[in-house]
Amino acid sequence: MTNAPREIENLIDLMARLPGLGPRSARRAVLYLIRKRGLLLAPLADAMHQVAVTARECVVCGNVSTSEVCDICTSEKRATGELCVVEDVADLWAMERASVFKGRYHVLGGTLSALDSMGPEELRIPKLVQRVVDEGITEVILALNATIDGQTTAHYIAEELEGRCAVTSLAQGVPIGGELDYLDDGTITAALKARKAL
Amino acid sequence: MTNAPREIENLIDLMARLPGLGPRSARRAVLYLIRKRGLLLAPLADAMHQVAVTARECVVCGNVSTSEVCDICTSEKRATGELCVVEDVADLWAMERASVFKGRYHVLGGTLSALDSMGPEELRIPKLVQRVVDEGITEVILALNATIDGQTTAHYIAEELEGRCAVTSLAQGVPIGGELDYLDDGTITAALKARKAL
Ligand SMILES: [Zn+2]
Ligand SMILES: [Zn+2]
Repeated sequence: MTNAPREIENLIDLMARLPGLGPRSARRAVLYLIRKRGLLLAPLADAMHQVAVTARECVVCGNVSTSEVCDICTSEKRATGELCVVEDVADLWAMERASVFKGRYHVLGGTLSALDSMGPEELRIPKLVQRVVDEGITEVILALNATIDGQTTAHYIAEELEGRCAVTSLAQGVPIGGELDYLDDGTITAALKARKAL
Repeated sequence: MTNAPREIENLIDLMARLPGLGPRSARRAVLYLIRKRGLLLAPLADAMHQVAVTARECVVCGNVSTSEVCDICTSEKRATGELCVVEDVADLWAMERASVFKGRYHVLGGTLSALDSMGPEELRIPKLVQRVVDEGITEVILALNATIDGQTTAHYIAEELEGRCAVTSLAQGVPIGGELDYLDDGTITAALKARKAL
């Protein structure tokens, strides 16, 4: 399409498949990488190879990890009896950036949705109930997006956990329709501190 | 910052240095890549490695290439006596997508600018004059961006080439202040066909 060498066309095609990059920004990115091939392209190739080889899902919580069980699940310091339920790893990272939650996580990998036909099993909800029992969890904090699907999922989980532990949710500061990963650290901190019982 | 494993943090940091990607879109892209590590991340690592090892600048025209002299400069079919001068390789690719120009290119790598202290030497303008003589060029088509710097550069080149060959520029269809790489193929075709003598 650009009459560039095959290797370069191939790289543009793959880059254009990244979220947020179309064909034009992929071409721009590839030209930028070629100009910085020693300083950026070669290190990026190595970093991608490293992650391709090592990245996996924590078998306990669903976090991304380079070991079977992630650092947070392994750390004894994080065994506070609190479990924070998030939709995806980007939300877990947003919570960690706020540095306010000291417990462990449970990553659903989505929300209950009729449209996507995601059921409780796909979202590891039975696994969550099992963890509450096995790990002696006293409080599950639902840090789900303030969307319809997020709130439907929150209510389903609250019902499943009824009588087993306290179930709270992030409250103050999460805007209606807002997504967690867009919030600043201060807002997340305020929302966690003002969490309310469901 | 995200408490992710070192390999993953490193990949996010490198991705965030790409044009058009900030920290947040870099995190999103990396999570997407991890989910698609077999289908996308590993091939992308390989493609980057391939390009890092093979990509270079054509010694004749400044195009990106995997050999010392690029395919366009090597192809006898492209020895039409016409040379198209572009600011960067993205513009060369835009011309090639339009499939209307059959000659060869000369990539300046920028424009004359007091601010960036880019002089004629950095822009390979002496090399352009030399090529006009050596390759028996009859027409130089200036396909520069319709910006102040682009037009300053066009006039400088026209003066340097005066009496050596015809010098024309893309005309009809290039919007004032517009950049070549944003134009559709039809506009580029029209502009080339309606080129005017400077
Ligand atoms: Zn874990
Ligand atoms: Zn060339």
